[in-house]
Amino acid sequence: MAKAVLTISSKNYGAWALRGWLMARLAGLDFTEKVISPDDPAMKAEMLLLSSSVLVPALKHNGIEVWDSMAIGEYLNEIKPKAGLMPADPKARAHCRSICGEMHSGFASMRGALPMNIKARFPNFKIWSRAQADIDRVLAIWKDCFGKYGGPFLFGKQPCIADAMYAPVVTRFLTYDVALDKACAAYCKRVMELPAMQEWVSAAQKEPDEIDELDAEF
Amino acid sequence: MAKAVLTISSKNYGAWALRGWLMARLAGLDFTEKVISPDDPAMKAEMLLLSSSVLVPALKHNGIEVWDSMAIGEYLNEIKPKAGLMPADPKARAHCRSICGEMHSGFASMRGALPMNIKARFPNFKIWSRAQADIDRVLAIWKDCFGKYGGPFLFGKQPCIADAMYAPVVTRFLTYDVALDKACAAYCKRVMELPAMQEWVSAAQKEPDEIDELDAEF
Repeated sequence: MAKAVLTISSKNYGAWALRGWLMARLAGLDFTEKVISPDDPAMKAEMLLLSSSVLVPALKHNGIEVWDSMAIGEYLNEIKPKAGLMPADPKARAHCRSICGEMHSGFASMRGALPMNIKARFPNFKIWSRAQADIDRVLAIWKDCFGKYGGPFLFGKQPCIADAMYAPVVTRFLTYDVALDKACAAYCKRVMELPAMQEWVSAAQKEPDEIDELDAEF
Repeated sequence: MAKAVLTISSKNYGAWALRGWLMARLAGLDFTEKVISPDDPAMKAEMLLLSSSVLVPALKHNGIEVWDSMAIGEYLNEIKPKAGLMPADPKARAHCRSICGEMHSGFASMRGALPMNIKARFPNFKIWSRAQADIDRVLAIWKDCFGKYGGPFLFGKQPCIADAMYAPVVTRFLTYDVALDKACAAYCKRVMELPAMQEWVSAAQKEPDEIDELDAEF
């Protein structure tokens, strides 16, 4: 059986790619990465439109092709039901999918004003009011989860699909020096300490500069 | 057991509401509608941001609250596994979720330039090139499905969650007089002829004018 292949884009800028990749790691999937060229239109599409494309992230596994971060997450949850990608309780699972859906289709202002850029740091970054409203909603979602499920991750003791969906937001909060209360700061720290996140961030730090040039075009 | 309640917004303008509502109808769920006031910020949020919100669409069922169109679809598929909301074949199901994901997070140009407005007709509407690129992608997705699964719906003989996700696009193509080939025009006609769609469209036609005034604000 051929090994699964996950197509991703930039590790520094590719927020959707990070989501799909992290879900695959959390699921314990054995996969190889295929990184698209910085010249590929899909790379620009991911950065410019801030939405996922057919190419990134995309998973090939056992003759099945699945693209889009949430579709990949649902697929992984089907093939690895014991990995705990989704909460076991139906009520928590409905909640989990709801906040994943909010992240998947919403927060356009935050995504536009604070694009993922793991390598960079912008102290005292000035946040536009609409982006702040998105940030406030994210923090309210997180706190609701901490209150209901007790942390340290969004749905309890282990990271799940929702943590993967919000992981790029965690990196943005650090990049753009977003003010956080103690509980949310601790959550961000916890996410960044996940071995899979450390692996991703380390690779982002080493990413060659031609991708920065692409970014500068826009 | 209390009857399920689905919160929706405008039937003329609420594309996300239509998706959730149509999924609930296709699932055969027994539910009542709760329509939010045109003054509710969620109504404006749906129209202005073109994305789903916590309030619309939202489903309460058996003590479970679930919001966001795709989260509602996944929930309905779990509680009504025999309704055929998702294709039974794993490969087709992965494909279905992938194209639902594209609709859920993408097509911002089409959504912005051609907002759902069931009552209106704009013959010879001039379509901006980026919106046309989105339209071309939608048509490619549909034709790929017709080729793979034989129609008349996206995944075969009965409408599924993907048809619900693309149903507002069908209404847009009619509203904005989008040029369609024979296969895509036939698909649009088939979707519009679904009893549930006829019920929704009929209610949209009768919607009071205060909602139009709200729309005119933006």
